[in-house]
Amino acid sequence: MAVDYQSLAVKGVQALSPYQPGKPIEELARELGLNPAEIVKLASNENPLGPSDKAMAAARKALEEMCLYPDGNGFDLKQALSKRFGVGMNQITLGNGSNDVLEVIARCFADSDSEVVFSQYAFAVYPIVTQAIGAKGVSVPARDWGHDLDAMAAAVTDRTKLVFVANPNNPTGTVHEADAIEAFLDRIPERVLVVLDEAYCEYLTGDEYPDGTKLLARFPNLIVCRTFSKAWGLAALRVGYAISSPEIADILNRVRQPFNVDTVALAAATAVLEDEAYLNRSREVNEAGLRQLCEGFDRMGLPYIPSAGNFVAVEVGEQAAGVYQALLAHGVIVRPVAGYGMPCHLRVSVGLPEEIDRFLDALAEALVSAGEGG
Amino acid sequence: MAVDYQSLAVKGVQALSPYQPGKPIEELARELGLNPAEIVKLASNENPLGPSDKAMAAARKALEEMCLYPDGNGFDLKQALSKRFGVGMNQITLGNGSNDVLEVIARCFADSDSEVVFSQYAFAVYPIVTQAIGAKGVSVPARDWGHDLDAMAAAVTDRTKLVFVANPNNPTGTVHEADAIEAFLDRIPERVLVVLDEAYCEYLTGDEYPDGTKLLARFPNLIVCRTFSKAWGLAALRVGYAISSPEIADILNRVRQPFNVDTVALAAATAVLEDEAYLNRSREVNEAGLRQLCEGFDRMGLPYIPSAGNFVAVEVGEQAAGVYQALLAHGVIVRPVAGYGMPCHLRVSVGLPEEIDRFLDALAEALVSAGEGG
Repeated sequence: MAVDYQSLAVKGVQALSPYQPGKPIEELARELGLNPAEIVKLASNENPLGPSDKAMAAARKALEEMCLYPDGNGFDLKQALSKRFGVGMNQITLGNGSNDVLEVIARCFADSDSEVVFSQYAFAVYPIVTQAIGAKGVSVPARDWGHDLDAMAAAVTDRTKLVFVANPNNPTGTVHEADAIEAFLDRIPERVLVVLDEAYCEYLTGDEYPDGTKLLARFPNLIVCRTFSKAWGLAALRVGYAISSPEIADILNRVRQPFNVDTVALAAATAVLEDEAYLNRSREVNEAGLRQLCEGFDRMGLPYIPSAGNFVAVEVGEQAAGVYQALLAHGVIVRPVAGYGMPCHLRVSVGLPEEIDRFLDALAEALVSAGEGG
Repeated sequence: MAVDYQSLAVKGVQALSPYQPGKPIEELARELGLNPAEIVKLASNENPLGPSDKAMAAARKALEEMCLYPDGNGFDLKQALSKRFGVGMNQITLGNGSNDVLEVIARCFADSDSEVVFSQYAFAVYPIVTQAIGAKGVSVPARDWGHDLDAMAAAVTDRTKLVFVANPNNPTGTVHEADAIEAFLDRIPERVLVVLDEAYCEYLTGDEYPDGTKLLARFPNLIVCRTFSKAWGLAALRVGYAISSPEIADILNRVRQPFNVDTVALAAATAVLEDEAYLNRSREVNEAGLRQLCEGFDRMGLPYIPSAGNFVAVEVGEQAAGVYQALLAHGVIVRPVAGYGMPCHLRVSVGLPEEIDRFLDALAEALVSAGEGG
């Protein structure tokens, strides 16, 4: 009698649906017999600028060390982050993208007896890492597509170990100002860790927005997570980090894999932190692109959620799945968000001006063909 | 009253000691004010050859895609592995080094109610991933520094979910022949997963040694783990993989992080699989280096454990910690293995001929000075 290995997996894993990434360009090219260079991908909130020259130079040099294990302590990168944010190197935990850090946090502090609070329409990795460890995920209904911070604070129970807050949020692009985040943190007991996921914070420029790293001194239960995958343009290389108290960082660093960030990634991230001009260009391109996208949606009469990130969730109606498919046929990849409970929206990343034009043209045609098909 | 965050961590994590990597060259250079180029590192079982040209070319090209997320499905690499081993792409799970795969396996199939069996003196990651999930690690006393497979089979109870077998083993270099591994697998119930860690298998050349990938058809509970960090020379980039039944691979792929292997790593690993000449050179250099090391130990009258890997555990006596420190002062980094319960040994990786000479000379001096110091 054959063994059913599915039934041997731990409970949380048995029912787990993995994260669905944006469709890779090469995959669509294979499926449709297209030239990859002709495909426009606005599906994964990637930086459309192309690599920073400084990051590229450092990465190429780092390749010479290909045969040697990475520096498991990430000395140079931690030193650069420490300098940038005015925190101790012992407050930093590096990760294989911020996904890694988010997962390590959950594994360190929650188990099958715990509850983990997050918002409806928030980043899919929160419920996934929660379920993988068999903890109970508590999804708090959103308010205007954003986090209802009052309701999230009220959802904390004796069993709550973690609260995930994405600011700005993905996939909706909503953001809270500093006052709201601080008032929220004031309401959370110190024994509950708050993970403030600031993956998109580099796109925020106004003083009214919080900078989690400045809140650490006041809130010892705060963990701030960031990434090099967005505004810093290193999605391919996988680097994220958490900043927390030294005590929490010590725990996280025990559980992360010893070589979770590779040599090329460490070198590129360290170098790109010196490339402020790249970051500024990223912001400018994003601001212009957001405007271009939203003007296009306005012209088409499509509602969208105002976004503080490098993407916009646009409402195309019940035919969204059909529109997604029609866009693929035009060689344009966007992100369906039905898995987020948003079956009428598509999430579109900010591209270069010509990519956005291409997308908007394809969208206009897709809306017609999907409407006819339905 | 301040919260003690250590006490809020899950039980297994509270007592966890993280993996201790080999000392990085840059770290020793900083500490001793040495020129990194003058330091010899024989501490992490790295390939001394330097990068494969094919891997380097592919990696450099892949850097152009720095801003884009990796292919989360690792299509090209899985296709290449599938071809090489005659297994389905759906039997493969890619990992951020084999460490990642080992951890994902433990998290998928074991929890705080489980027992996990491994050998005394086996790879440190097995007890670490076991403890991190709160499972009970069962360390089976070694026989002649190697796995006592009979005792390991006898240690399986109703609560055993996983057995880790390293073949060849690290840090001792011991190896079992195919007959012994197959007889062992015959004794393990199908409901218990056996993880055959073949990180060093590329250094085995005789027909008497097992090839785990050939055993999968007979043993549905077998998971074979391998890495690109050793003979393939890609330690910096972090690529490992598991081959198993499609059913088990499906479970593992749900839990691994969606972008756990980065773009550069995927490209380099795919390319290096085409570089059979590099693999052959790796083997030749290793064989000659092992001989050179062992002849040196013989001359000094130092006992060592005969090794099938790219390293040798040499017995320097109770002064091993002092010898390690004295070697550091000579700019030579090897690996103390007291953490493995081998306080009288040091593990030395195979380097290039001149590196081994440098190490042997330093060792002769270190033995004298450590002897005087003690």
